[in-house]
Amino acid sequence: MDKVTIADVARVARVSPSSVSNVLNGRSERMKPSTLERIQQAIDQLGYTPNLAARQLKTGHAPIIGLIVPSVANPFYGIFARRIEEAALANGYQVLLGNSDRNPDRERQYAEELWGYGVRGIIFGSSLVQFTHLESLIAKGLHVVAFDRPTQQGDRVIIDSIGVDNVQVTRLATKHLLALGHRRIGFISGPIRTVNRLDRLEGFRAALQEAGVEPDPQLVWEGVASNFGDAAAVDLGRQGAHDLLSKTHPPTAIIAINDMYAFGVYAGARDLGLNVPEDVSVVGVDDIVLAEVVQPPLTTVHQPITDITRLAVERLVGRLQETCTEPLGHQVLSPKLIVRASTARCLQN
Amino acid sequence: MDKVTIADVARVARVSPSSVSNVLNGRSERMKPSTLERIQQAIDQLGYTPNLAARQLKTGHAPIIGLIVPSVANPFYGIFARRIEEAALANGYQVLLGNSDRNPDRERQYAEELWGYGVRGIIFGSSLVQFTHLESLIAKGLHVVAFDRPTQQGDRVIIDSIGVDNVQVTRLATKHLLALGHRRIGFISGPIRTVNRLDRLEGFRAALQEAGVEPDPQLVWEGVASNFGDAAAVDLGRQGAHDLLSKTHPPTAIIAINDMYAFGVYAGARDLGLNVPEDVSVVGVDDIVLAEVVQPPLTTVHQPITDITRLAVERLVGRLQETCTEPLGHQVLSPKLIVRASTARCLQN
Repeated sequence: MDKVTIADVARVARVSPSSVSNVLNGRSERMKPSTLERIQQAIDQLGYTPNLAARQLKTGHAPIIGLIVPSVANPFYGIFARRIEEAALANGYQVLLGNSDRNPDRERQYAEELWGYGVRGIIFGSSLVQFTHLESLIAKGLHVVAFDRPTQQGDRVIIDSIGVDNVQVTRLATKHLLALGHRRIGFISGPIRTVNRLDRLEGFRAALQEAGVEPDPQLVWEGVASNFGDAAAVDLGRQGAHDLLSKTHPPTAIIAINDMYAFGVYAGARDLGLNVPEDVSVVGVDDIVLAEVVQPPLTTVHQPITDITRLAVERLVGRLQETCTEPLGHQVLSPKLIVRASTARCLQN
Repeated sequence: MDKVTIADVARVARVSPSSVSNVLNGRSERMKPSTLERIQQAIDQLGYTPNLAARQLKTGHAPIIGLIVPSVANPFYGIFARRIEEAALANGYQVLLGNSDRNPDRERQYAEELWGYGVRGIIFGSSLVQFTHLESLIAKGLHVVAFDRPTQQGDRVIIDSIGVDNVQVTRLATKHLLALGHRRIGFISGPIRTVNRLDRLEGFRAALQEAGVEPDPQLVWEGVASNFGDAAAVDLGRQGAHDLLSKTHPPTAIIAINDMYAFGVYAGARDLGLNVPEDVSVVGVDDIVLAEVVQPPLTTVHQPITDITRLAVERLVGRLQETCTEPLGHQVLSPKLIVRASTARCLQN
C-alpha cells in the first residue's frame, strides 16, 4: 500500500491539509467538534501515521529535542521538565526525557540513543563539573544547552548554558539569616560535587566571611548518597538535621541545598522536639509549589524556572535552526529571596 | 568512512566486545577505572555511535519503550516515571517520556511519533475513559499497558492494564473516617472524568451508603481545570477547602483525590484559621514521600507504586518479546490505608 499522506486525509475528511496538520500537532482547541471528528475518522480509516522519515529528510533533524535531568522524582525537575516541554511545544518541538542520576555513562548513552534517532539538540539538567562524556557527540554536531553549568576551568569545549547565579543564591539566604542575628548557620546538602552545589557552598562561606563570621566546617553537612541524593532528598535533609541539631553547640539556622532537603530538615527538627522557626530557622532553594503550602511556609530562594526553561529552549532551537548568532556561553539570571515564616530572629546569641 | 563497530572499539581498547557493550549500556560499576577509561578513549578516538538501525533490523523494534503521563509536575507521576525507568532498565529497555495533560490528541501525537521511530510499546498513565484515540495504532501492532484503566463498557479493543482497586481506595478512606465518628465527609477533586477518579467517587459514595449515611452532593467538590488539575492540584485543593469549609454546615472531614490536593486542603483550612485534625480531618491518596513529612503527617491510601511499575514494564516487555501468553486484561493490586496524624475522632456530632 502506498504511504498515506496528509493530503489523502484532508481529501477524505473534506478539509484543508492545514486543518489535518493542526489536529496532528495538537492544535484542535478552536476546531468544531464535528470537523475534528471527521478528521479523526479519516485518519483511522486510512491508517495514517506521520511520515517522519520524510520530515527528517526535509529538515535534516527530527522535530524532537532531548531533555536529560537527574531525576523527575525531585519535584523541582518534574516542574522543570514540564516547563521545558511547554516551551518546546510553543517552538514546534516535542521533548523526550530521561533521568540520568547525574551518571555520565547514562547521559552519554541517552545522548547517543537520541542522536541515533536523529535528535540534534539536548538540554542537560545535571550541572556536572566534567562535560568530557559529551565531547565526541558535540564534535559531531550535537547542540547542547546545560542548566546551571557555566564554563569551567579546563573545559575543552564551550557549551551554551543557563541558570541563576548560584553563589548569589546562598549569599542572599545567608545575609538574610545574618540580618536576623544568626551566627551559627548550618548548611545541609547531598554530595557537593556539581557546579551549582559547589557555587552554593561558596556563596554561603563568602557571605559569612564578609560579615566577619568564620565558617565552621562542622556545620557543613554533606550527605553520602550514590546518586547525589536526588531521590532521597527528604531523607538526607532529615538525617542532616538530626546530626547538626544534636550537637553540643547546634546551629540556630540551617540552609538546605533545595526545598526538598528543607522539608526533610522540618521533619528532622520535629523528630527532636524542636520548632521551626522558634528553635531553628530554615531556608530552602528553588521555591517549588509546596514551599508556600508547608507549615510553616518556607523562606526560600526562588529560581525563575519559567524564564530559565524558555530561554534554554529558545537558545537550543536557535542553534538547531541556525538563527542564533550569539557566541556560545552562559546566560545568567538573578535569584530572588522569598521571605516566609520559617525564619525568625535569633534569640540565642 | 566505514561504520565503526563495537568490535573495532574492543580491538583498540584491548577488551572483549561484551565489556564495550557493558559500558554502552551503563553497566560499568564493577569495571576497573583504567579499563573504563581505555574503552571511553577508544569510543572517542573512533567516533563510535551505537548502530541503532542495525539493532532495529535485528530485533524488529527499538530497545525503547514510551511512557506518557498526565504531568510529571505532580510528584506522584514524577516518582511513577522514575520507577518505570528503573524497571525498564532492569529489563534492557530505555524509556522516553512525554506529558499529555490527559489530552487525547497529544497522546495520539506522541504515540505516533514514537511509532515512527520504531517504538512498539507504550505505557499510558492517564486513566482516560475513552481509548479510541489509540485504536488505529493498536490495530497496527502497538502494545499498550495502561495504568488505572481497567476494561470499560463499550471498549472495542481490550488492552493490558494495571492499578489498584480505586473503589477500594476511597472505601478504605471513608470507612476509616466513619469509624472515627464522622458523618459529614467532603470529597475534593479536579475534574472527575477519568476512570480512577470516577471509581474513587463511587467507593466514597458506596461506603457512606453501606453505613446508612446518605451522600450529600453539596459535599462533593469538583474543581474546574482545563487540564484535569494535575498542574494546579495544590491550588485546587486549597480552593475546594475554602468552599466546603465556609459552608453553614461544613464537613468535619475531607477526602482529597490525591496527596497534592490534600496538601492544598491543609493550606485552605489554615487560611480559615482551622486546624487539622482538630477542626477537620484530612485523608489523601498515593502516599508520596512528602505525606509522612508534612505537618501533621498525612493519613493516606498507599499505592504500591514499585510493584505497579515493575508489573507494568514486565507485562509490556513480555508482549514485545512475545514471552507473555496471558490474555489481555487488567491486573489489580490492593491499596493500603496508612493512618497518620491528619485524622482524629469527630467531636461535633
